[in-house]
Amino acid sequence: MNPLDPREFRRQGHMIIDFLADYYQNIADYPVLSQVEPGYLRNLVPDFPPLNPEPIETILQDLQQHIVPGITHWQSPNYFAYFPSSGSTAGFIGEMLSTGFNLVGFNWVSSPAATELESVVMDWLGQALKLPKAFLFSGSGGGVLLGTTCEALLVTLVAARDKMLSKIGRENISRLVVYVSDQTHCAVQKAAHIIGIHPKNFRVIKTMKSTSFALLPESLLSAIQTDVQNGLVPCYLCATVGTTSTTAIDPLGPLCKVAKKYGMWVHVDAAYAGSVCICPEFRQLIDGVEDANSFSLNAHKWFLTNLDCCCLWVKDPASLIKSLSTHSVYLENSASDSKQVVDYKDWQITLSRRFRALKVWLVLRSYGVANLRNFLRSHVEMAKAFEEMVRKDQRFEIFVPRNFAVVCFRLLPSAVAKVGNGKVQNGGLKTEDLANEMNRRLLDSINGSGSVYMTHAIVGGVFVIRCAIGATLTDTPHVVKAWKVVQDHADAIQNH
Amino acid sequence: MNPLDPREFRRQGHMIIDFLADYYQNIADYPVLSQVEPGYLRNLVPDFPPLNPEPIETILQDLQQHIVPGITHWQSPNYFAYFPSSGSTAGFIGEMLSTGFNLVGFNWVSSPAATELESVVMDWLGQALKLPKAFLFSGSGGGVLLGTTCEALLVTLVAARDKMLSKIGRENISRLVVYVSDQTHCAVQKAAHIIGIHPKNFRVIKTMKSTSFALLPESLLSAIQTDVQNGLVPCYLCATVGTTSTTAIDPLGPLCKVAKKYGMWVHVDAAYAGSVCICPEFRQLIDGVEDANSFSLNAHKWFLTNLDCCCLWVKDPASLIKSLSTHSVYLENSASDSKQVVDYKDWQITLSRRFRALKVWLVLRSYGVANLRNFLRSHVEMAKAFEEMVRKDQRFEIFVPRNFAVVCFRLLPSAVAKVGNGKVQNGGLKTEDLANEMNRRLLDSINGSGSVYMTHAIVGGVFVIRCAIGATLTDTPHVVKAWKVVQDHADAIQNH
Repeated sequence: MNPLDPREFRRQGHMIIDFLADYYQNIADYPVLSQVEPGYLRNLVPDFPPLNPEPIETILQDLQQHIVPGITHWQSPNYFAYFPSSGSTAGFIGEMLSTGFNLVGFNWVSSPAATELESVVMDWLGQALKLPKAFLFSGSGGGVLLGTTCEALLVTLVAARDKMLSKIGRENISRLVVYVSDQTHCAVQKAAHIIGIHPKNFRVIKTMKSTSFALLPESLLSAIQTDVQNGLVPCYLCATVGTTSTTAIDPLGPLCKVAKKYGMWVHVDAAYAGSVCICPEFRQLIDGVEDANSFSLNAHKWFLTNLDCCCLWVKDPASLIKSLSTHSVYLENSASDSKQVVDYKDWQITLSRRFRALKVWLVLRSYGVANLRNFLRSHVEMAKAFEEMVRKDQRFEIFVPRNFAVVCFRLLPSAVAKVGNGKVQNGGLKTEDLANEMNRRLLDSINGSGSVYMTHAIVGGVFVIRCAIGATLTDTPHVVKAWKVVQDHADAIQNH
Repeated sequence: MNPLDPREFRRQGHMIIDFLADYYQNIADYPVLSQVEPGYLRNLVPDFPPLNPEPIETILQDLQQHIVPGITHWQSPNYFAYFPSSGSTAGFIGEMLSTGFNLVGFNWVSSPAATELESVVMDWLGQALKLPKAFLFSGSGGGVLLGTTCEALLVTLVAARDKMLSKIGRENISRLVVYVSDQTHCAVQKAAHIIGIHPKNFRVIKTMKSTSFALLPESLLSAIQTDVQNGLVPCYLCATVGTTSTTAIDPLGPLCKVAKKYGMWVHVDAAYAGSVCICPEFRQLIDGVEDANSFSLNAHKWFLTNLDCCCLWVKDPASLIKSLSTHSVYLENSASDSKQVVDYKDWQITLSRRFRALKVWLVLRSYGVANLRNFLRSHVEMAKAFEEMVRKDQRFEIFVPRNFAVVCFRLLPSAVAKVGNGKVQNGGLKTEDLANEMNRRLLDSINGSGSVYMTHAIVGGVFVIRCAIGATLTDTPHVVKAWKVVQDHADAIQNH
């Protein structure tokens, strides 16, 4: 038994490449949202692992028969749910190489190229984003590749917490306050809970439709002032560029100004929208980042980098390292002792880490910044086209202004009320509640068809359907079809 | 531009398979430990990312020329450092498929197969390990695939913390105590710091060479009693089966007995050695696990599963979920509402997650449990052979009994003293210090040659060289050669 026999590796590897190429070729034929029922797999597989080897051919047959039907096809051109997870050939082969080398780059010496290429691509991408020098290694900061934004939030929260506690004393952990808006990703609340922020000190500030669900500096200021009056200590603000529900944009400059007065750490979460800021016409949306402490985006969302890949830049790496470094005798080495190298284990939660830089390197070089810009713009253009189609149908409304490539829309209460007055009986439901119920039913009906997959948000009490464009294979005809699917299902519901 | 064009995907994919197959074929020719200097890469790459696309051929050329020399070859048959990161064809293609589907399986509905296959393989592997039913889905527990042990420690620590705080009140976080031995992995201290355990309440209990560096139950009890007398609250114990320095084994049963009396959470970290417990003759080493709360191993260490893959089983999933669940309106779905499905996002730190189950499924099916057992045994046999060779050379000693496939050895003080009395002048250094210094020099010399790569540990003040056998391509001739390399360098140092 040689599990890395080059001949067998070659044979099976080529087989899987063909399997996946075929998969992409036929992906539009699959229902986007898997239509299986909970527990579907248990009865299709044995209770015990096999004692003896099985041939790859058998396993691939089972994969096609039992696993693929249970997959929701995030790479389908008809996938418009959540945010995209945009894969690419370059991202894929970057991950293949990383998996093939299978090295554990916890510190510089464990594989110098892994660390050094990561520092290079983080400076490259930082420059493509025109991040201030203070965030780059070529300036006084630096960047690191993590798995997800949740990790970026966790490490910056720990650094912020420790920085503040070193001033006010560790016993005061229960006085620290973390600020977000009601549109901020739930990951911040989870991360704050993990690091021991008292649940009653997690401050969720209300936003409004009239100001496009952005966090207002005056609301932040007022919340902070109340807390300070109550003897609490403002510690961390997460501002978002491109919120999950509606891609709202918090005004970075003014928010940082408020936060700075209180010595808080400001993290900018641009998980989704950060990528498009490599286009000059979008760059202004992160103006003000120069006053933040850290900035992150998920290259696996909208930057053609296969899962997982979160890019985090910090102005003051020393504060991360202070909180997250470990000193084990078995990891000691002269390169680390020399302080001339980056040891990324001290920039993250975990010790082991994959060679993610290869993916980003491959994507940037294979496509080039100019093409990447145009590719992202093409999604924005498709979203504009979708928006136009929605606007032309009187039954629907665009719920909030579209900022990027996500369109939030719904069947209007008026269209729904007409239905309500007609055949559908909904007891004493108010028009808005009825509209929510009908839009939920519409979305279920669309997704149940398997033709497209969209998801929802509820903002200001209103249920909206989100059409998030950005799957790599999506092209204009898919978007046109998607809207046709929505209309057909709306017709069916109205005529029911 | 179609970054997922099946034709181009196929072309480049096949190219990379051949690149990696060639890499494995020639891997023994590379220096195992990269011999580059800090900062080597900066001058080899441009300061800015390219504006325009570059052909894959150019990128691969750069990869071979600039990146490969900076890689420390963890897959080399001459790699004996740290712990192995054992890749395999099955592990590799499992990761390829996961990367190709590129789905984000945060909850059941986002891709049912990802969740259900994960539950299946965790029960499969749990059965192969003869874990008590209480840790399996087929019992009342369950398992989850995380990235690394650091994450397993963090999630179990948070669950343990919250469970205790729900009894004694959240304001008492500064009273919680976490227990480890001085041989426990530094990841526990880091995770405890992250979750807000007061640094003065991180209790490191001394171990001794005479008891093989195992954590003694009586030492634990005495530490706990002192803490309780001081008004502190014992919360969490991490017991290790196969410590990093010397693969020491903490006695699980007696430790759990002590911890249980105080209502503590016990986690068993078998990151390295857990895998080999699928062999009946090693299974007894985790006897007592039935009284622990959680158990984890890294399948990417010694189970042919490419990075990253930590398997964590817990008896009470509800306690994890209570601490780590999030409720976002945009993730609501009827499957989750039905409570009939597992939503793994609530079992881990991050929201997004890769489809890791494919790797474990591929490994278990491609090799079968019987072959996997024999493969692991072959490493243990090679380690025995290495140990025998060391014993035969009077200059060396085996420092601690070998438990698995790691041999801890060193040049004896007597051999060194002879050198010291001969040509080497070391001022006033004591014999033991001199021995440490000579062993360090020996290891540097070995690794500097590039022929093999081993690392060190310092235990009980003694610098030992660790030869960790388990790289997938390692076979007996490599081990024989490795010992020859050690001897040759020892000769050279002695004759210097």
